[in-house]
Amino acid sequence: MSTRTRIETFRHTLYQTIYQANTPAGKSFDIALMILILISVLTIILDSVADISRRYGEQLATAEWVFTTLFTVEYILRIFCIHRPIKYIISFYGLIDLLAIVPSYLGIFISDSHYLQVIRILRVLRIFRVLKLVRFINQSNLLINALMASRLKITIFMFTISTLVVIFGSAMYLIEGPEHGFANIPVSIYWAVVTLTTVGFGDITPQTDLGRAISAVVMISGYAIIAVPTGIFTAELSQEMKRQNTGVDERVCSKCRKIGHEMEANYCRICGTELPRLAGKKSG
Amino acid sequence: MSTRTRIETFRHTLYQTIYQANTPAGKSFDIALMILILISVLTIILDSVADISRRYGEQLATAEWVFTTLFTVEYILRIFCIHRPIKYIISFYGLIDLLAIVPSYLGIFISDSHYLQVIRILRVLRIFRVLKLVRFINQSNLLINALMASRLKITIFMFTISTLVVIFGSAMYLIEGPEHGFANIPVSIYWAVVTLTTVGFGDITPQTDLGRAISAVVMISGYAIIAVPTGIFTAELSQEMKRQNTGVDERVCSKCRKIGHEMEANYCRICGTELPRLAGKKSG
Amino acid sequence: MSTRTRIETFRHTLYQTIYQANTPAGKSFDIALMILILISVLTIILDSVADISRRYGEQLATAEWVFTTLFTVEYILRIFCIHRPIKYIISFYGLIDLLAIVPSYLGIFISDSHYLQVIRILRVLRIFRVLKLVRFINQSNLLINALMASRLKITIFMFTISTLVVIFGSAMYLIEGPEHGFANIPVSIYWAVVTLTTVGFGDITPQTDLGRAISAVVMISGYAIIAVPTGIFTAELSQEMKRQNTGVDERVCSKCRKIGHEMEANYCRICGTELPRLAGKKSG
Amino acid sequence: MSTRTRIETFRHTLYQTIYQANTPAGKSFDIALMILILISVLTIILDSVADISRRYGEQLATAEWVFTTLFTVEYILRIFCIHRPIKYIISFYGLIDLLAIVPSYLGIFISDSHYLQVIRILRVLRIFRVLKLVRFINQSNLLINALMASRLKITIFMFTISTLVVIFGSAMYLIEGPEHGFANIPVSIYWAVVTLTTVGFGDITPQTDLGRAISAVVMISGYAIIAVPTGIFTAELSQEMKRQNTGVDERVCSKCRKIGHEMEANYCRICGTELPRLAGKKSG
Repeated sequence: MSTRTRIETFRHTLYQTIYQANTPAGKSFDIALMILILISVLTIILDSVADISRRYGEQLATAEWVFTTLFTVEYILRIFCIHRPIKYIISFYGLIDLLAIVPSYLGIFISDSHYLQVIRILRVLRIFRVLKLVRFINQSNLLINALMASRLKITIFMFTISTLVVIFGSAMYLIEGPEHGFANIPVSIYWAVVTLTTVGFGDITPQTDLGRAISAVVMISGYAIIAVPTGIFTAELSQEMKRQNTGVDERVCSKCRKIGHEMEANYCRICGTELPRLAGKKSG
Repeated sequence: MSTRTRIETFRHTLYQTIYQANTPAGKSFDIALMILILISVLTIILDSVADISRRYGEQLATAEWVFTTLFTVEYILRIFCIHRPIKYIISFYGLIDLLAIVPSYLGIFISDSHYLQVIRILRVLRIFRVLKLVRFINQSNLLINALMASRLKITIFMFTISTLVVIFGSAMYLIEGPEHGFANIPVSIYWAVVTLTTVGFGDITPQTDLGRAISAVVMISGYAIIAVPTGIFTAELSQEMKRQNTGVDERVCSKCRKIGHEMEANYCRICGTELPRLAGKKSG
Repeated sequence: MSTRTRIETFRHTLYQTIYQANTPAGKSFDIALMILILISVLTIILDSVADISRRYGEQLATAEWVFTTLFTVEYILRIFCIHRPIKYIISFYGLIDLLAIVPSYLGIFISDSHYLQVIRILRVLRIFRVLKLVRFINQSNLLINALMASRLKITIFMFTISTLVVIFGSAMYLIEGPEHGFANIPVSIYWAVVTLTTVGFGDITPQTDLGRAISAVVMISGYAIIAVPTGIFTAELSQEMKRQNTGVDERVCSKCRKIGHEMEANYCRICGTELPRLAGKKSG
Repeated sequence: MSTRTRIETFRHTLYQTIYQANTPAGKSFDIALMILILISVLTIILDSVADISRRYGEQLATAEWVFTTLFTVEYILRIFCIHRPIKYIISFYGLIDLLAIVPSYLGIFISDSHYLQVIRILRVLRIFRVLKLVRFINQSNLLINALMASRLKITIFMFTISTLVVIFGSAMYLIEGPEHGFANIPVSIYWAVVTLTTVGFGDITPQTDLGRAISAVVMISGYAIIAVPTGIFTAELSQEMKRQNTGVDERVCSKCRKIGHEMEANYCRICGTELPRLAGKKSG
């Protein structure tokens, strides 16, 4: 075996381990990566706590460099073993992978690491790579398909919400005014969002009778309107699941006239007579 | 071509551009209008912020006049090119279109522009014109049909909510009383709405043990009752989506006057009379 | 016509007017009653506002006596014209009808009308009589059937919620303790209800790190668990609606072999052939 | 009858009474146990209230010892009458049963009963034993099956929520900073959970314009995202209910080993082989 072939074989094995999850090595790699990501995110989170940062600052910085090194090696290997590196680099996950390592190196030159710290936390998005595990893929495709199918309806819903929030916010600004915390229309719109979504911080609350009456309308609207996205998504998801599961076709048994046999059926389940073959059996 | 015909042709082209969205010009007009509406609403919102108003007040006023002029021209063109102008003027969107321009002109005569400002913001409703884009129409019809179908059920639900809120509010007024912020029954009902809808501002909270126990009941009720509008809307939307997929049309049987036959039907299912053929059978 | 027969006829007409809604007189009576109830409830609500009570106290008291008199007359007529008066008197609505008038009479003897006032407000429940209007009956039966069908599942859900609330409440009492507002287990359970139902008053909030971590668990639980009652009710309501609407049976057309005709169908909608009759047509 | 047989008979009767609910004695035992558990939990809850503890401390302590004794006797009987005591002892309910009595005995040796008190409250979990009542079993199986079926989807949802909360929390920490209460990333994540789940305590609220804008995004996300678990659970529950109604049983075809045939099936739908008859075909 030539050196070239050897390298190719190595690249291929590496590719399977890093990018796929159907080999044992691939699964182990995924789990190891997931743990690494979680610990590194935890490190960043803990580092933001003043007490911990003061006491364990050095250890955390060391850990961060260990993570950065590991992620850098991983990033280089990813580029090395993939067929079209450029396509990977400019893909969503490629950018996330880069974002996971760049801030640490930038930190050497930039003293105010405050912003870098938070950019570094975006590496938490890498966790979604684990969803490539086969049993997750089907399920997340199901969810994504349902969301895609309800795209237009959700857009209409968001339009409606935005309009309601602008109108209710402006009305409250007029009624309550700056003296009750509704300082200007943006703040009043913020209040309308807080109220319509049933969050209700209570940092700004209506004080006048009319304001409270309108608030009650906003709250009941928000309470009832939540039915809309829920209904949309539920209906689409039900359809999507049915589409995936379906298998009942409308063949009629020639002997007992039973109708409605499952896709996979070759024989009538009532009388055992052979059923007509389906023209093109659905594959999925 | 006579001048008259020319004007007619121009009116027709204008009509298609302004009122419809199936020509390229119509689509461009819609998008331009949408952007214009959004910017003009943004201008009003920003103008309410004291800091911005002080610094950029003049620019914002100029912008507002530009928008008003453009909307006025649009309004005149809309009246000019439509077949029955009066019907348009008194329609919902006709009034909204008028409301988008009138406040600015009134502002010349009235010094306190506070109210006018908020009325002006109602032009945000014009954004819904964009929903006439064909792919949105089907979807919003679906949502509107589902809401219409659940009209009666939602009314019953609202009756129940109102009754609960009145009873719980009065009970809390009795138990907690004015010394704990439940100043009178209207305020207590406001509190009950805040609590039942799970908004929970926290501006008024129960202090006594019994009051807290009843609050817990209100909260759990609100938490569980939300299932009702959600269930109603979801069930109706599922049905509506199924109806759209199966394709019930509104052909009338010439003999027994039965309405509502399935797309694929050639004969009335009640009396067996042949039905009129559909112009272009939907393919999907 | 003898006097006796006359009285009987009068009683019957009265009965139809008061208890039913399918005659014009019955409908008018219902609407008049509804308006009367709403105004009388509004009177009680307004009377609780100190300002209004001070200024319009006498007018409101007079109005209250007018309402009481009218409701008393109605109550007597209801007893007079019904077949079995005792059954009516001890029925739910009978008691509500009595409760609507008794407090005013008791108010003559009892000086502290505070409690009576709130009992009087229970007359708001009388509003549900209006739901006997025929188009509401079907819909509210649908909702009630769906709720009845999910009775057991909702009970299990409530058990789970109660258990969670007790355990989380106790845990928070241990972790946060009286110094952070978690004064004792009942108060902590109240906090757990406020948090799990996503109301979030903010009158009691966790201060410790562990307390906040557990709060996050409670909140996410509450956020996700709401899917359970919603799912239960939605699924039951869908089934109930299908049961009511259903009409597709599995008859096969003898000529074109089309299967799946609606219950009411007599002829195949594809080829117009007569279908076999159904044994016992469902009545609806 | 020998003594041995007598004991065996007694053990068997005891087993049926304690562990099953289909004899009258078994039902009575269950109800008595449920009441006992509820009262004992109530005792612990009341004991945590300073006022009540001071006044009725002794009575409550006595009551606690009565409950402990009863539960101890029950625990011994449970071990005595079951076939494989070890399996019971290390089962979930076995441990809960033990946990219901141990803290009281430990309380003799340990002076700080604070922790024991809260551990004792875990006996509230014993209440779920009552769900073994036959009509509850079906329903709770239905719910559990639906939850199991949505396991993977819920995991994906939880992943997404966690990621959102980490990213939004970190962003708010950067924008608002410690001076507005966002002291560090863990606290900011706590805020993000409070906001995304629409709880909204209001103990920490955004003060800057950008912070409020991002909060609005978080709130609307939380408001819309709730559709996801609801949709998942509703769709799965609908399917589960349909599955229970249609009646797929688990007969295995003797020839092709296909499992899962419909209730009404007499022949395997894959290979046409006759299936074993069902003992008692479900009628509905």
